[in-house]
Amino acid sequence: MATDPRDNLVAWLRDAHAMEEQAITMLNSQLKRLEHYPALKARIGQHIDETKRQEQVLQACLDRVGGGSSSLKDAAGKLTAMAQGMSGVFASDEVVKGSLASYTFEHMEIASYRILIAAAEAVGDAQTKAACERILAEEIAMADWLSDHMDDITRQFLSRDEAGLTAKR
Amino acid sequence: MATDPRDNLVAWLRDAHAMEEQAITMLNSQLKRLEHYPALKARIGQHIDETKRQEQVLQACLDRVGGGSSSLKDAAGKLTAMAQGMSGVFASDEVVKGSLASYTFEHMEIASYRILIAAAEAVGDAQTKAACERILAEEIAMADWLSDHMDDITRQFLSRDEAGLTAKR
Repeated sequence: MATDPRDNLVAWLRDAHAMEEQAITMLNSQLKRLEHYPALKARIGQHIDETKRQEQVLQACLDRVGGGSSSLKDAAGKLTAMAQGMSGVFASDEVVKGSLASYTFEHMEIASYRILIAAAEAVGDAQTKAACERILAEEIAMADWLSDHMDDITRQFLSRDEAGLTAKR
Repeated sequence: MATDPRDNLVAWLRDAHAMEEQAITMLNSQLKRLEHYPALKARIGQHIDETKRQEQVLQACLDRVGGGSSSLKDAAGKLTAMAQGMSGVFASDEVVKGSLASYTFEHMEIASYRILIAAAEAVGDAQTKAACERILAEEIAMADWLSDHMDDITRQFLSRDEAGLTAKR
């Protein structure tokens, strides 16, 4: 079965759109549990706004390139399963595991956009490539923020947990 | 409920041990499907050997610090669920999604070891800290390799897929 590269691009754009929808759900769920981690809470709030815009950008790409395609792959469900595996972690009150999952999810997004950029380039779709490059920069910035704060979050959690406090209380 | 930081460290070491066990299963499953991606296959083979040693190092840390602990958290299952969500992706024949999942999994490992290093430092466990720093360097090297080859893997997949070829055939 030969597959046109453009059909792979469309399938991966759909995966990315589903991934960002999942991201919004997970980030919102995490946001509610972070009363005592104000910097993390603020950064997640900012990233929720970014993610909503990213979802719209992906939808616009799909509207432009993907209208009539019918040879889509079944990979979207696999990424969503991966994301749902992580959403159980987000539902936890434990800020360390939540940050670990956020950092992991950001890198799933980073890899996805790098693949999309390579695919858009391969099929000569400059608009999709540029859109994904802009989104990629936001994902890298979020991943870097989490990376820069992971040690602090861990130490803060350990000392709060030693005092019997949760992220909310 | 107050929790001794050392108990969190032990729980996270157990999580990491379970994570590396899962990694060996997933990497082996991916290895079998990469006949036509020899560089990726060789790098994954190398990382399987590294991962087996990492698992032994973690077991030695646990034997040393975790013998009598009984106040472990229930977080291990969550990480394992996350990893299992990814293992469905690895089982797929599609090398792009497999590389995406590998890259993502490596960053889950990177975050886990950074958390472990911060925790080991917080409780003054220099041996665990040093062991996790050595493992972290291997995980970063694997993530960097995947990052450096992701564009090539994507292009190669697109052109093989256009010719109707899979990773194995």
